[in-house]
Amino acid sequence: MTNHPFHGVLAPVLTPFKADLSPDLDRFAAFCRWLLAQGADGLAVFGTTSEANSQSADERMSMLDALLEMGVPGMKLMPGTGACSIDEAVRLNKHAVAHGCGGVLMLPPFYYKGITDEGLFSFFSEVIQRVGDSGLKIYLYHIPPQTGTPFSLDLIGKLITEYPDTIVGLKDSGGDWSNTKAILDAFPGFGTFAGSEVFLLDTLRGGGVGCITATGNVNPTGIRKVYENWETQEADALQAAITKTRQIIQSRTLIPALKTIISHYHADTAWATVRPPLVSLTVEEQKALIADLDADEGFSIAPATLEDAAE
Amino acid sequence: MTNHPFHGVLAPVLTPFKADLSPDLDRFAAFCRWLLAQGADGLAVFGTTSEANSQSADERMSMLDALLEMGVPGMKLMPGTGACSIDEAVRLNKHAVAHGCGGVLMLPPFYYKGITDEGLFSFFSEVIQRVGDSGLKIYLYHIPPQTGTPFSLDLIGKLITEYPDTIVGLKDSGGDWSNTKAILDAFPGFGTFAGSEVFLLDTLRGGGVGCITATGNVNPTGIRKVYENWETQEADALQAAITKTRQIIQSRTLIPALKTIISHYHADTAWATVRPPLVSLTVEEQKALIADLDADEGFSIAPATLEDAAE
Repeated sequence: MTNHPFHGVLAPVLTPFKADLSPDLDRFAAFCRWLLAQGADGLAVFGTTSEANSQSADERMSMLDALLEMGVPGMKLMPGTGACSIDEAVRLNKHAVAHGCGGVLMLPPFYYKGITDEGLFSFFSEVIQRVGDSGLKIYLYHIPPQTGTPFSLDLIGKLITEYPDTIVGLKDSGGDWSNTKAILDAFPGFGTFAGSEVFLLDTLRGGGVGCITATGNVNPTGIRKVYENWETQEADALQAAITKTRQIIQSRTLIPALKTIISHYHADTAWATVRPPLVSLTVEEQKALIADLDADEGFSIAPATLEDAAE
Repeated sequence: MTNHPFHGVLAPVLTPFKADLSPDLDRFAAFCRWLLAQGADGLAVFGTTSEANSQSADERMSMLDALLEMGVPGMKLMPGTGACSIDEAVRLNKHAVAHGCGGVLMLPPFYYKGITDEGLFSFFSEVIQRVGDSGLKIYLYHIPPQTGTPFSLDLIGKLITEYPDTIVGLKDSGGDWSNTKAILDAFPGFGTFAGSEVFLLDTLRGGGVGCITATGNVNPTGIRKVYENWETQEADALQAAITKTRQIIQSRTLIPALKTIISHYHADTAWATVRPPLVSLTVEEQKALIADLDADEGFSIAPATLEDAAE
């Protein structure tokens, strides 16, 4: 389990929408290229931060098609392919594999609650067997605050044992370091990502491979400095700086806050649009957020416009 | 708000699956006809009990097509049409309206948590306006144990005020009678259904229109007796009998328990199959459940086989 398709700092890429709420493919591709140019090691498109579950499977597959046509390399992509139904999850995973994606980030089915490990194992087994392709590399997406359905250590172990070439890693977005630590200790060599840069240094010291973090959309260079220097004497100071920035952003409603930041620092108001059921920050909330970030010495964002990145 | 497309006892119809987990359309249509023959006032196909969220939108629409082709009347159908994305919810609702369904039972978007009333109102507004058809009659599906997203009294009121000909009722599956009571008191004339027959008599006495209940799949005649006799002196005794039966079933994992009951009393083992992430009851659990029901004097189930019903 040491040849990981992904390591480092990945962004769960924000999805720009047009005024009619349809995905804005040009802005999306330009933003993906900008993130890679800033040092992002991969793009976890169609994650929670991407408002992926506010988009249908068909919409997401069309967006992936468009990204590849616009020159974003498939091996850098880790699309979200989880769904509540086996057939939708199979469609999304087959599509990702056929497009050469380096891996996928797969939610558990998230409607029914009180689901057993046996039921989850059965769900993943059905999907893996129906996809039936050795190119499928699954990162389990542990995010109980949204799904209500955790991946237990027992379940992770059983999936790794049964599908060692397919179940290659996990993103822990539970917000509980003790859980990440338990996974790192139980499964050395597994591709474990922190779900927030707040735990990046601890995760790397514990044998993990990096972080997949919402704020990677706005602070990729700062977060990557921790990854590059985690074994140096600077590491703790660098971690403190990105933790401070994270806390400024996280104290707001996260997704509209991130879109506000892109909209402001990239001077592109169209970026502020979110899809219902999410709502945008108020003008006052937007101003307060930007004022806090302007005052944060540790935070900087590349001045290049998205249009430059798109060229 | 007094012309309700539905009232009485509705079953959220169980979905039979073949061994390969695909929907068994013949058994499904036969079961729908059996339920109507037993006195069900309507069929809430594709609800929680139907494992609808373990089926993709395409699968559900194909099943609805098949039901109508097999002679189940559209006006008796209240399909589940909620989804996490606006575009999928629009597709499902347009399809239901085009097929002459009497109404729809619509979940809120259920991935993101901590959603505001403003965001939910915006989601429903987008869907209603994009469907753009006066034939759309929405029953709000309040089931916070699964969705984490309740419909507040404020939100219900705002939706009724803005869309009085479209937002016609609600199913309260929260399990909290005080919430149902508050809805009944706040919105007289609104088509409020209890989400469990345990609250049927109280709901009718409070001005509600009936119940949409999982156990309506197995005890439709018993539950309907309460509906038919709610203003008589027998009402409380009839309610006590169906409450007792409900508690026997509810103390098990509900959906596999219901499929066990159909499988046993209809002598059709194929019915026991559930889709992952759900799991079937063990043989011991199945035996104990059937023994408890056999000992329950208030419970009886029509002996007609599903094949008879299908003729």
